[in-house]
Amino acid sequence: MLLLLLRAASARAYSTVFFLSPSASYLTRWPVAWRTGEGVIDWQMGRWRQAPRPLGLLLAAILVGIVGRCDGGISSAYVRKAEKTIDMPLDSDVFRVPPGYNAPQQVHITQGDLDGTAMIISWVTEDEPGSSEVLYGTDENNLDLSAEGIYTRYKFYNYTSGYIHHCTISNLKHDTKYYYAIGIGDAIRKFWFISPPEVGPDVPYTFGLIGDLGQSYDSNITLAHYESNPNAQAVLFLGDLSYADKYPYHDNVRWDTWGRFVERNAAYQPWIWTAGNHEIDYAPELSIIHQSFQGETGIDDTLYQSLQGETIQFKPYTHRYWTPFESSGSTEPYWYSIKMASAHIIVVASYSAYGRYSPQFKWLEAELPKVNRSLTPWLIVLMHAPWYNSYNYHYMEGESMRVMYESWFLKYKVDVVFAGHVHAYERSYRVSNIAYNIVNGKCDPVPDESAPVYITVGDGGNLEGLATNMTQPQPSYSAFRESSFGHAIFEIKNRTHAYYTWHRNDDGNAVAADSMWFYNRYWQTAETTSAV
Amino acid sequence: MLLLLLRAASARAYSTVFFLSPSASYLTRWPVAWRTGEGVIDWQMGRWRQAPRPLGLLLAAILVGIVGRCDGGISSAYVRKAEKTIDMPLDSDVFRVPPGYNAPQQVHITQGDLDGTAMIISWVTEDEPGSSEVLYGTDENNLDLSAEGIYTRYKFYNYTSGYIHHCTISNLKHDTKYYYAIGIGDAIRKFWFISPPEVGPDVPYTFGLIGDLGQSYDSNITLAHYESNPNAQAVLFLGDLSYADKYPYHDNVRWDTWGRFVERNAAYQPWIWTAGNHEIDYAPELSIIHQSFQGETGIDDTLYQSLQGETIQFKPYTHRYWTPFESSGSTEPYWYSIKMASAHIIVVASYSAYGRYSPQFKWLEAELPKVNRSLTPWLIVLMHAPWYNSYNYHYMEGESMRVMYESWFLKYKVDVVFAGHVHAYERSYRVSNIAYNIVNGKCDPVPDESAPVYITVGDGGNLEGLATNMTQPQPSYSAFRESSFGHAIFEIKNRTHAYYTWHRNDDGNAVAADSMWFYNRYWQTAETTSAV
Repeated sequence: MLLLLLRAASARAYSTVFFLSPSASYLTRWPVAWRTGEGVIDWQMGRWRQAPRPLGLLLAAILVGIVGRCDGGISSAYVRKAEKTIDMPLDSDVFRVPPGYNAPQQVHITQGDLDGTAMIISWVTEDEPGSSEVLYGTDENNLDLSAEGIYTRYKFYNYTSGYIHHCTISNLKHDTKYYYAIGIGDAIRKFWFISPPEVGPDVPYTFGLIGDLGQSYDSNITLAHYESNPNAQAVLFLGDLSYADKYPYHDNVRWDTWGRFVERNAAYQPWIWTAGNHEIDYAPELSIIHQSFQGETGIDDTLYQSLQGETIQFKPYTHRYWTPFESSGSTEPYWYSIKMASAHIIVVASYSAYGRYSPQFKWLEAELPKVNRSLTPWLIVLMHAPWYNSYNYHYMEGESMRVMYESWFLKYKVDVVFAGHVHAYERSYRVSNIAYNIVNGKCDPVPDESAPVYITVGDGGNLEGLATNMTQPQPSYSAFRESSFGHAIFEIKNRTHAYYTWHRNDDGNAVAADSMWFYNRYWQTAETTSAV
Repeated sequence: MLLLLLRAASARAYSTVFFLSPSASYLTRWPVAWRTGEGVIDWQMGRWRQAPRPLGLLLAAILVGIVGRCDGGISSAYVRKAEKTIDMPLDSDVFRVPPGYNAPQQVHITQGDLDGTAMIISWVTEDEPGSSEVLYGTDENNLDLSAEGIYTRYKFYNYTSGYIHHCTISNLKHDTKYYYAIGIGDAIRKFWFISPPEVGPDVPYTFGLIGDLGQSYDSNITLAHYESNPNAQAVLFLGDLSYADKYPYHDNVRWDTWGRFVERNAAYQPWIWTAGNHEIDYAPELSIIHQSFQGETGIDDTLYQSLQGETIQFKPYTHRYWTPFESSGSTEPYWYSIKMASAHIIVVASYSAYGRYSPQFKWLEAELPKVNRSLTPWLIVLMHAPWYNSYNYHYMEGESMRVMYESWFLKYKVDVVFAGHVHAYERSYRVSNIAYNIVNGKCDPVPDESAPVYITVGDGGNLEGLATNMTQPQPSYSAFRESSFGHAIFEIKNRTHAYYTWHRNDDGNAVAADSMWFYNRYWQTAETTSAV
């Protein structure tokens, strides 16, 4: 086993799932569909989780002894080839404008209601408003249904957007392939999607996890890798979309190129949006006065400051990317929930107020008790800034929100929290840090089986490059970390089990560079508990 | 000394300032005006601060020995008479509407720019817009200057406000008595104020501190006590004004009564505003649909939720109480700064986003390095939710903001942080808690001479009543705490010294139930340092 560990540590694909011979009594609880492997040992908190059995326990004991010498888990030995991460140029083929006058572009869809019987279809027309109507149906050759949407546009400093259309199509049948067409004249474009299955406790579903994508060459590899997965059904996007704000005047043309770049997937699968810091687009310094007139007219400082630039937060993001926040009783697009298959997904906002009495606080306080684990066993939280991060980038930035909400996540047994922000990959053990009361000194993260696993997938590949500098030694809460670009897959099997994998871009698609079986925190079986 | 301590502890007025015989060399540094007492020993962190001298040191050593047995400082033995705190009825004389058709009411003023050469005059007319003009001048009988303001109004559920006027008068001479008149016809009303002195390092100034005032009988006593102080020149208000949100539908009539209640002072002295949680007025449940139509029309949940009620935060507050936020480069009225005399006052917002990348974060990050301690030696921060609080009410609610900003307060040597929120009084030692890095276990507040003193003055006397339940034992960071209504006075003497007192309502005005000499964190003299 020691040899196996060492070999694995030096191998390119490092997986924490090892296959041993099956334990029949254990497997009987698992659905047939994924009884393909053998018995599973799940590395968590430096312990093996498996059906009890002498060999497994012996191996576990040996391994714990080895791991015991480290502070945390594994810092991957894999080192990515050092190269600069640069954005694809404006004339890249992935950014090409579709042919035809005023052709719809930047097409993307997201779930339009609480339980997946509606979809919001969004697109941009550049030349004139055109039509906001969506034709759709289940017969590709007979789009017998239609819905009328609206369009909006915005100005940002010296940029004026195209006509941004949003149309919600409702009363969809579940788990059904729908075709839809948008645009008019010689520029009609057709797409399709499969509506989410009816919500239920054992409904399998496969989510992709992508964060901090941007529009670099690496971003393109990340998206291509995700697309190559034949099972993935929807993207849980962890914030930081276009990185347009890295350009002079937050050049919003880069919002348009990003929309065209991701269309190849986002027009066909619902992308569930989380707002990141690169969506804030708060730029008081972008004042027309400041740029054009201040020097000449001698406008005094007070007046100048009252004529500040772009101070409405999230302006491009909220115009372009809608979320179904009203359906879950939220009053802002940044925090909301949806149900998909057997999952209840809660999106929280790292960049809105989250203190006590804030609307987000009140919403989340009311939302968590509403989660019905008998209907949606899997409770997944998305946020941008991670709470458990051991890189030297953005270290402890999540603390301020963690101290507000972590005890709730424990109480309501959140299964997993996905975050972005840190441009690397990291998975935590199940840990909590809620005992602190200022005077008791109890401020160490401790193993906690009621706690979520915290996973950072901020490794989409944007132009800011990789986070490579890790805190040392690896802290005890960190199970696995690696500085590579990639994406993750969370594959729900049934109410008790989900299989999670992380795929680094440098690997072939099939390889899971990190993986883990998730046992549902609510439905956790006696076997998995006793295996700890 | 032991006897003295015990006697003081049982006395009604408990002061931490003791007078001993003077040390001449020490006193030479003090301005004549307040060399009236004797040498001062200042109790901080369980140590005496004084010019070094054998007797002082001996007494200090004895006292430290005594205090060493306690966890924290003093929990006052004074127990307020138990009685319910109730709001004054609508027909109370303090709420009376001024006579005359459309007479200006709810008159209040606040500083209108960064350094006190402007004042914002605000008032309400109920019957019609009337005039937004202010006539003003330095000769009571010749108001030779005028300025034109604007008016606004708002609806809140079933309430429609009067016409709320705001007029900024500018180019004021410093430290000058100005008379002003508002209204027209037979309802002209006249008031006066003294403009702030020119900003400078040794300019004395006296601030009142009032928080969580409300409009109960106790609120009236608090305000009357403050008014009886002949020296106080401006109010630093720590949030939670009217408590109108405690009434059905947040009955905004109670915003009007509050405005009339405080006019007797707020029309004559600038009140510097901090937003508290009772200013949020976020009430999605106050939906007209919900109240009137939902049952009848069968509107579905999704539509109903999209027609939610009062979801614009701070609506009454921002319409009624303006702040000069643009002058300090802020883009929201909730965080800003002003300079008054020798103080640089920073107002931060407990109920806006304060996370990294938020506008408030960026503003504060840029603001603190701008503070020029050679011009404004005193750096004062106002917030609503306290960071250091040892009552069982709102315990640890300030943690989320503390972990974001505390290290900045240390770095920039903030002198004092005033907060409200907890309906009681508390003063901390100079402590900090910034060593924590998740893995080092260092999460105890520790004595820190670079740290501010944290003072909670949430004891204005509102209808929610007193916070009486204290955490036990008193934590080491807490220097003095008492469950009484009251207000405080911060009296800046010069660049090095300020005298602080807290006045409980049950006492006569002249008594300081708690007091402390403040030594400026930037200009702290060698003498006071060596006395530690």
